[in-house]
Amino acid sequence: MKVKEIMDKEFIFAAPDQKIDDVSIRMEEKRKFTSPVVDKDDKLVGWITSLDVTRGLREHKKKVKDIMHSKEKIVTVHENDPARLAVLEASKHKLVSIPVLNEKEVVVGVVRTFDIVKTLSQLYEIKVYKIFEAMHHELKGVSWNELMEAASIVTRRYTGERITPEEYEQRIKNSTFGEAIWATGGLEKFFVGFTAIGELVIARKVARARR
Amino acid sequence: MKVKEIMDKEFIFAAPDQKIDDVSIRMEEKRKFTSPVVDKDDKLVGWITSLDVTRGLREHKKKVKDIMHSKEKIVTVHENDPARLAVLEASKHKLVSIPVLNEKEVVVGVVRTFDIVKTLSQLYEIKVYKIFEAMHHELKGVSWNELMEAASIVTRRYTGERITPEEYEQRIKNSTFGEAIWATGGLEKFFVGFTAIGELVIARKVARARR
Repeated sequence: MKVKEIMDKEFIFAAPDQKIDDVSIRMEEKRKFTSPVVDKDDKLVGWITSLDVTRGLREHKKKVKDIMHSKEKIVTVHENDPARLAVLEASKHKLVSIPVLNEKEVVVGVVRTFDIVKTLSQLYEIKVYKIFEAMHHELKGVSWNELMEAASIVTRRYTGERITPEEYEQRIKNSTFGEAIWATGGLEKFFVGFTAIGELVIARKVARARR
Repeated sequence: MKVKEIMDKEFIFAAPDQKIDDVSIRMEEKRKFTSPVVDKDDKLVGWITSLDVTRGLREHKKKVKDIMHSKEKIVTVHENDPARLAVLEASKHKLVSIPVLNEKEVVVGVVRTFDIVKTLSQLYEIKVYKIFEAMHHELKGVSWNELMEAASIVTRRYTGERITPEEYEQRIKNSTFGEAIWATGGLEKFFVGFTAIGELVIARKVARARR
């Protein structure tokens, strides 16, 4: 996934000579906490946040150029960068948004942390059921019921909980990958359980084939 | 993981009768785009963003209560809620931060989207190597070399790429879960490959045991 797939293209921008009052109204209307500042060719020359605007209003500054951060101090990403770069930069620098440039250094979008959260949370919202379906599809010669039975046995072995194969199936229909990794105590533990289920069902399959 | 594990406890807060100018300075100093408004018992009574502050400054409002959102309109989470609830709420309502309450409705923290991004990205940054180590630990009687050999065979079967077990080991040392799911084309496909490797190595183990 690339930056351009998660960026907001409906961003607002400001000009260096624009009045702070006008930019302030526009940011409030569009509910944007940040705005790139661009020159007449739409190239990035600065960056303002609503905290720069509050300072400007209190100190009676007049123009955007009086409050903006200069280009050198702005973290930017390019539209064809991997989306994970934007994730890492936002996390590292504690940014609420990052301007996105094209190969001509023109601002073409803004990546916002809640867009990143949305993208990442969609991954988490995948049903565990889908993952088991993928596993079942891969394991030729193992029935869905055998897989659920193995899962209920492994669950009992790890947690002591008695759960029927039918109950297990119901549980994975309702739970997401995000819930599962938080419930098992992390990604590595989720994989341990997943591996244990696979091992049991495959060992049974191989044993059956050799009978 | 619970909300209290990802929330910012070093948040700032405002009082309804506080001057907007003072709150504005404090938000700029601490680089906070939002602030809960609390009563004398630290209970939540309102919420302000830096965009409410810019409006207040432009329109010459005096006090926090003149610009704050009332409690009924604020999205909140409780400290013992699952962290994923904060993720879903931030994503759904496009919020940069959410106040966290305890059982007495006292504000005890603020969840910010870049904290969420940090938490989610840490998951992504887990090395694939760690996942294979967890798998190896679970699969008693399978050597690490056998696991790497199975992985190189599966890679060749799926992608046509000839890769030695040593090269595969090097690759998973350097790549993260995030890169792997983006490289394989998604979470489900990652699990398919993972299952295929497990199946191959377990089938070999069982065959060996029966010899």
